[in-house]
Amino acid sequence: MNGNDQSKFPTVIIIGGGFGGIEVAKQLADKPVEIILIDKHNYHTFQPLLYQVATGSLECESIAFSLRKNFEGQKNLRFRNAEVTGINQATNTVHTSIGDMQYDYLVIATGSTTNFFGNKDIEHYAMPMKSIPEALNLRYLVLQNLEEANLKASKEERAPYLSFVLVGAGPTGVELAGALAELRNHVLNKDYPELVKDEMKVYLVDFLPKVLGPFSEEGSKAAEGYLKKMGVELMLGAKVENYNGEEITFGDGTSIKTKNVIWSAGVMGVVPEGVSKDAIEKGNRIRTDEICRVVGTSNIFAIGDVAAMITKDTPKGHPGVAQVAIQMGEATGKNILKLLRGEQTVPFKYNDKGSLATIGRNKAIADLGKIKFQGFFAWLIWMFVHLISLMGGRNRVVVFINWIASYVTYNGGNRIIIRKFAREELHQKDMQVSQVD
Amino acid sequence: MNGNDQSKFPTVIIIGGGFGGIEVAKQLADKPVEIILIDKHNYHTFQPLLYQVATGSLECESIAFSLRKNFEGQKNLRFRNAEVTGINQATNTVHTSIGDMQYDYLVIATGSTTNFFGNKDIEHYAMPMKSIPEALNLRYLVLQNLEEANLKASKEERAPYLSFVLVGAGPTGVELAGALAELRNHVLNKDYPELVKDEMKVYLVDFLPKVLGPFSEEGSKAAEGYLKKMGVELMLGAKVENYNGEEITFGDGTSIKTKNVIWSAGVMGVVPEGVSKDAIEKGNRIRTDEICRVVGTSNIFAIGDVAAMITKDTPKGHPGVAQVAIQMGEATGKNILKLLRGEQTVPFKYNDKGSLATIGRNKAIADLGKIKFQGFFAWLIWMFVHLISLMGGRNRVVVFINWIASYVTYNGGNRIIIRKFAREELHQKDMQVSQVD
Repeated sequence: MNGNDQSKFPTVIIIGGGFGGIEVAKQLADKPVEIILIDKHNYHTFQPLLYQVATGSLECESIAFSLRKNFEGQKNLRFRNAEVTGINQATNTVHTSIGDMQYDYLVIATGSTTNFFGNKDIEHYAMPMKSIPEALNLRYLVLQNLEEANLKASKEERAPYLSFVLVGAGPTGVELAGALAELRNHVLNKDYPELVKDEMKVYLVDFLPKVLGPFSEEGSKAAEGYLKKMGVELMLGAKVENYNGEEITFGDGTSIKTKNVIWSAGVMGVVPEGVSKDAIEKGNRIRTDEICRVVGTSNIFAIGDVAAMITKDTPKGHPGVAQVAIQMGEATGKNILKLLRGEQTVPFKYNDKGSLATIGRNKAIADLGKIKFQGFFAWLIWMFVHLISLMGGRNRVVVFINWIASYVTYNGGNRIIIRKFAREELHQKDMQVSQVD
Repeated sequence: MNGNDQSKFPTVIIIGGGFGGIEVAKQLADKPVEIILIDKHNYHTFQPLLYQVATGSLECESIAFSLRKNFEGQKNLRFRNAEVTGINQATNTVHTSIGDMQYDYLVIATGSTTNFFGNKDIEHYAMPMKSIPEALNLRYLVLQNLEEANLKASKEERAPYLSFVLVGAGPTGVELAGALAELRNHVLNKDYPELVKDEMKVYLVDFLPKVLGPFSEEGSKAAEGYLKKMGVELMLGAKVENYNGEEITFGDGTSIKTKNVIWSAGVMGVVPEGVSKDAIEKGNRIRTDEICRVVGTSNIFAIGDVAAMITKDTPKGHPGVAQVAIQMGEATGKNILKLLRGEQTVPFKYNDKGSLATIGRNKAIADLGKIKFQGFFAWLIWMFVHLISLMGGRNRVVVFINWIASYVTYNGGNRIIIRKFAREELHQKDMQVSQVD
């Protein structure tokens, strides 16, 4: 029983239990359809807080939520923990690691993965942070390198272990830079009294001349100010040439010796085999029409990070953020029902609620349309929005307690290494993450 | 700087940050000694709650506590996250993965590991549960097998995936049996509406004719009653012959087809290379005198599960429980100080505070010396004792919230699979756990 049962209702297959896929399934609850939700993980990942898992501030299980538990009681949904190996648009089939499944409607909500822009060295040696296993690998690398540094006799030998180079100054890079700076400023000497705090360096690199590219000028400037005050070294307008595991080199001929390069400089869509090549846009995204329907198809939709809805108003598609995925998911669920009823579909219109990013305690940037502010109040808003967006009451309470403990003690989290990270296994583990894990 | 610095104070090396090792270090705080604490993990494991990690009721990080964080501010202690590869009693040297270290006093607090009594098949195919990586492997196996069962067409095909055979009816086996029975009774059909609850079977096997061997007759009988009422099938007085990954066979010729065998039928000490063979007792434990000093040595101590203090009063040594390790750690710390001062040492005397085991909600056994009781009040005591014994205020709060959520909803925990478990990797992972991880 891989999925398809005898049923008089049409089958909607959703690939991916991220923000978008979940929203489609919610919209179709109690409606005359059979839903099969497929995900290679049995949980939903709350990606905006991955960086706190990487720095050991949060347990990974607080930002993961069981997909089965989430859909308890939704009688028209079956969950399948499987890997999609491809689709066949001609026969309406999804091929998976547990067998083939037939659909009437298909929603591709597979999200995005790290884009190394074809540089194999960087892909091999730099750390991505797009999934929970990747965030855990990063945490273990950071902690192991602090342990290593602690054993070295000279400042020169310690430097590569204590240098953290973050490439990509979008929200992920900025938030991680802030968290690493706080780790240095408040925690390092408590955990490692033998280390000298100032020897730990956090570099934030971007090709653009500013941080938080998509934010307002005002927000971007404020973030730069916060980062500098916390001791993050900004390298803006800098082009990364290569990284060989020991040294990262830049376009201007400079370099930094480091064992820690974290790459959040770009993403690309995760497209299942079998999607027509004609529909693939820049960034490996799937081109759709105004109702999120994949161009050239009548019954396949793409939403969220993997979708590129290219219209007059959105010549580059939409930004790869949770709000787009959620709103596309809602619209697609509703439009599938309209198609089933023979009603007129409604074009998707993105309602941009604004952007938030935090840099550290009491410091955040809020760009909410015309209203822009920074600092303590923005930080409270950031916390509130992230808490209510988390899935599961227990997760909300546990994250809230962790944040309170961190705020009060300046020493939150529980920096433990469950499984040793071995650099030579990184590539292999990446493969597992994308293929099996 | 692997550990030894120039210092006028004698060096005490403690191998292992379990209950015993931590207690030695605490006793020696602010005393004129240099302490080096070595552990292959950078965290302390609260073993009594491992079974709740295995069933997904608790996050693993709630029962782990960073050793560095625990000893923050203890100026005479340095922590080393390293693997001990051996000791040299003649030269007072500990060999480790990060170099050699010299000691004046050595405390071996390495604990115990699962004893498969030489059966290589069982060691290869059955799941141990003595460490956090092992408990996580077990959780992932259980969840993956529920997913597998969900895909099978017939009851016969589903049976091996839904049969859980627990070998060893000590506290670990009994508590895990109770937790699995609760998973079946309250959670299974919420997460897996396509499965039939009664097809999931929990078997608890022991060579002895009773459960909770070391408990009172009254406590043991009560536990049997609770287990039966919850639907656990007791197989007492049964001898396991073999397990080949598909079928477990018993001495009486019967067998059960199962993909899930969990082995908690015995432990053995983890003895570093270089300890004199003459000092090794039954169960691979190190024989000590009345002050926990290894026989034939003047400056090496063994405490907790790895120690066998064989005296007139304790012809088999002490039970392998946390209280023994803690009390031996305290006594050893004090006796090392006495030896340094040239004072008379004090023989160790175990103060047995009693035993507790829980079987499920509202059900526990308390054997507190002459006071014996079972049921709701024992269960409250069990929770209270375990909460206060946990390390770290944050961990206590998080575990408490998880327990409240489970009690109220009948559906606690967050049964997620972070890394897929592959049976063919089990042996390899075991190796990692004991050698590198």
